[in-house]
Amino acid sequence: MALKIYGLAMSTNTTRAMICLHEKEVDFELIPVNVFTSEHKQPPFLNKNPFGLIPVLEDDDLTLFESRAITSYVAEKYKEVGPDLIRHNDTKEASLVKMWTEVESHYYDPAVTPIIYEYFVAPFQGQEPNKSVIESNIEKLKIVLDVYETKLSTTKYLAGDFYSLADLSHISSTHYFMQTPCASMINERIHVKAWWEDISSRTAFQKVVGGMTFGQSDQK
Amino acid sequence: MALKIYGLAMSTNTTRAMICLHEKEVDFELIPVNVFTSEHKQPPFLNKNPFGLIPVLEDDDLTLFESRAITSYVAEKYKEVGPDLIRHNDTKEASLVKMWTEVESHYYDPAVTPIIYEYFVAPFQGQEPNKSVIESNIEKLKIVLDVYETKLSTTKYLAGDFYSLADLSHISSTHYFMQTPCASMINERIHVKAWWEDISSRTAFQKVVGGMTFGQSDQK
Ligand SMILES: N[C@@H](CCC(=O)N[C@@H](CS)C(=O)NCC(=O)O)C(=O)O
Ligand SMILES: N[C@@H](CCC(=O)N[C@@H](CS)C(=O)NCC(=O)O)C(=O)O
Repeated sequence: MALKIYGLAMSTNTTRAMICLHEKEVDFELIPVNVFTSEHKQPPFLNKNPFGLIPVLEDDDLTLFESRAITSYVAEKYKEVGPDLIRHNDTKEASLVKMWTEVESHYYDPAVTPIIYEYFVAPFQGQEPNKSVIESNIEKLKIVLDVYETKLSTTKYLAGDFYSLADLSHISSTHYFMQTPCASMINERIHVKAWWEDISSRTAFQKVVGGMTFGQSDQK
Repeated sequence: MALKIYGLAMSTNTTRAMICLHEKEVDFELIPVNVFTSEHKQPPFLNKNPFGLIPVLEDDDLTLFESRAITSYVAEKYKEVGPDLIRHNDTKEASLVKMWTEVESHYYDPAVTPIIYEYFVAPFQGQEPNKSVIESNIEKLKIVLDVYETKLSTTKYLAGDFYSLADLSHISSTHYFMQTPCASMINERIHVKAWWEDISSRTAFQKVVGGMTFGQSDQK
């Protein structure tokens, strides 16, 4: 039976999981959850994820939520297929993958997501982007990107000279971020820019990018 | 050479790492970092962690920051010693450990830490605890604890009937939380209360609890 992902093709957290599945060439079915009618806040979905958020993965009797737990499971289960995203043969390299994945989740995502929200979700809800929210997150993001620039001047990817879950975790949010006026923050840091061009050109991401249409009708 | 932990015995993130080292009976040295003089925001320490936060682990040539990356590394490296905190022989159980560790890090910690901060750090800085910050985080925490209560009525620990990194991750922050007027939130949920009593009575935690003295002089 094919794995199931409950989520939306335009959602950053859903595509984080999907990119990993594509890297591992895993056959899966995307089952849309209508967040606009709050399907995810009602019982059938709440049984899968009591926090009422997408994505959720189902693999036979396993139900898993939290996108980074999903990528980690997929990378472990299919460790022999495609790129080794978790460095399963090297405990130290594996620990660096986890460390930079934590960095994405604790510092990068909390700065990037509110910026995306202001430029994509606020207009969708008929509001102006909140400048002070944007400014304060730009300040936080600068610190993170400066750390990345330094790191990426010594290794090709975040955890070392190998592509891993740590890099993969950044792709879906950065894709939307690059459509905001803040994209220059990536483009003006030469190593971060080269890294972004590299990771965003991977086939696995190209398979999901077409579905990442949030905000498109508003921008036209 | 013994592992080194740079941090403070009273810090929740440092003790998260230390509890794991004690569970695995690993010989380590705690090297104090004076956060009160901002030692962690200056070059020697910033070379270890460019984000300027404790804890940092050093194991020969490996330097690792982010407490949950550290526990994960220690649990993997010493997987044959003490309790199996990552369920390394079962990919599905291992994925549930990761999922509940993500829950701690994305939902539990962001609600509990501001409450601890208001009751411990604000008075230390001569301020009154901010009631609206406390109220809004109580609301967030209720949702999380209700999910835990339901889950812990079906399994003894969060990821299943086995103690794991997911449970361990909660101990140090919950220890301080239990000294706030909000402790009743744990005590009034019978399964959460039993779980807390179980995980906080473990020998590994008893080895660090004596050092968790933050706020003590203020409270006397
Ligand atoms: N930490 C979670 C976050 C999940 C999340 O926030 N998902 C969003 C979609 S990208 C969602 O479900 N939003 C609907 C809502 O907040 O009601 C993960 O990594 O999976
Ligand atoms: N996500 C990090 C958080 C580390 C952290 O916030 N540490 C606190 C001590 S508990 C710290 O260094 N505080 C000093 C500061 O913020 O300047 C981890 O899990 O290690």
